[in-house]
Amino acid sequence: MERTQGSAETGEVDPAEAFAADVFSRACTSRGALEHVTGKWSLLALTALLDAPHRFGELRRRVDGVSEKMLSQSLQGLERDGWVHREVRSSIPPHVEYRLTPAGAELAPRLLALVTFVEDHMPEVHRAREDHDSRS
Amino acid sequence: MERTQGSAETGEVDPAEAFAADVFSRACTSRGALEHVTGKWSLLALTALLDAPHRFGELRRRVDGVSEKMLSQSLQGLERDGWVHREVRSSIPPHVEYRLTPAGAELAPRLLALVTFVEDHMPEVHRAREDHDSRS
Repeated sequence: MERTQGSAETGEVDPAEAFAADVFSRACTSRGALEHVTGKWSLLALTALLDAPHRFGELRRRVDGVSEKMLSQSLQGLERDGWVHREVRSSIPPHVEYRLTPAGAELAPRLLALVTFVEDHMPEVHRAREDHDSRS
Repeated sequence: MERTQGSAETGEVDPAEAFAADVFSRACTSRGALEHVTGKWSLLALTALLDAPHRFGELRRRVDGVSEKMLSQSLQGLERDGWVHREVRSSIPPHVEYRLTPAGAELAPRLLALVTFVEDHMPEVHRAREDHDSRS
C-alpha cells in the first residue's frame, strides 16, 4: 500500500487513505510495529499465549532460553501496542497474568502458521544448507 | 512439537519423529531458521520477491532504508536456508537476479499475510499506544 500524501490540488487528505500503512517505507510506523511482533521473544510469547493465559514464570519456562529482562521488555512492548493484556489477579498471593487481547488473538494464529511452516520445513532447510556449504 | 530423544529401551530413534522441530526449545535449529526469515530486512526482501524476481538494486530501492551490507547479508542467509535463489544472468552487462525458490514461494505469502495484518491494524496500534502512554 502507498502512503497517501493528500491531493496536491486541494491539500485534503482522505482520512481512510491517510492511514494506509506501508512497511516498505522507512518512515511508516507500521515497520516498527511489525518488528515488535516478529522479534524473537515477542513472537514466541505471542504464540505461547495462544493456548491459554499465562503467568510470567510460566511464559518464561515455555519460551526456553529467554532472560527475565528480555521477556519483560517484550511483554511491555506487546502490551503497549495492544496485542497483550496484563492483569494483576487479586488471588492470595496476588499474581500477574498475561493474555492475548482480541487483536492479539487475531494476530497470533498468523505467527503460529509461520512457526509451524518453518518447523515442518527444517529437513529442507538443512538440505539447502548442506548443499550451499558444499558449493562454497 | 516435542523433540524426540528416541526410545530409552532400544536407543532407536524414529526418523520421522527425530526431525520434529520445536522453536520453543533453545536447542532446536528451527529457532535460528525462524529468526532468519523474520529478521527485519529478510522479511521485507522475501515479501518484495513475491511480485517478481528482482535485481539487487531493485530490491534495495524497494526495501527502503536498507544498507547494501545488510541486504546482502540477509539475501545470503535466505539463499543458504533455501528460500531464495541467486542467479547470474549472462546478459550484457551480466547481472544478478534474486527469486523465490519453491519453498520460498510457499513461505512468502505467510509473511505477506502478517505484513498486511499489521498494516491494516495500525490505527488500533496507535490507539493502544496513546491509551497505554496516558495511563503510565
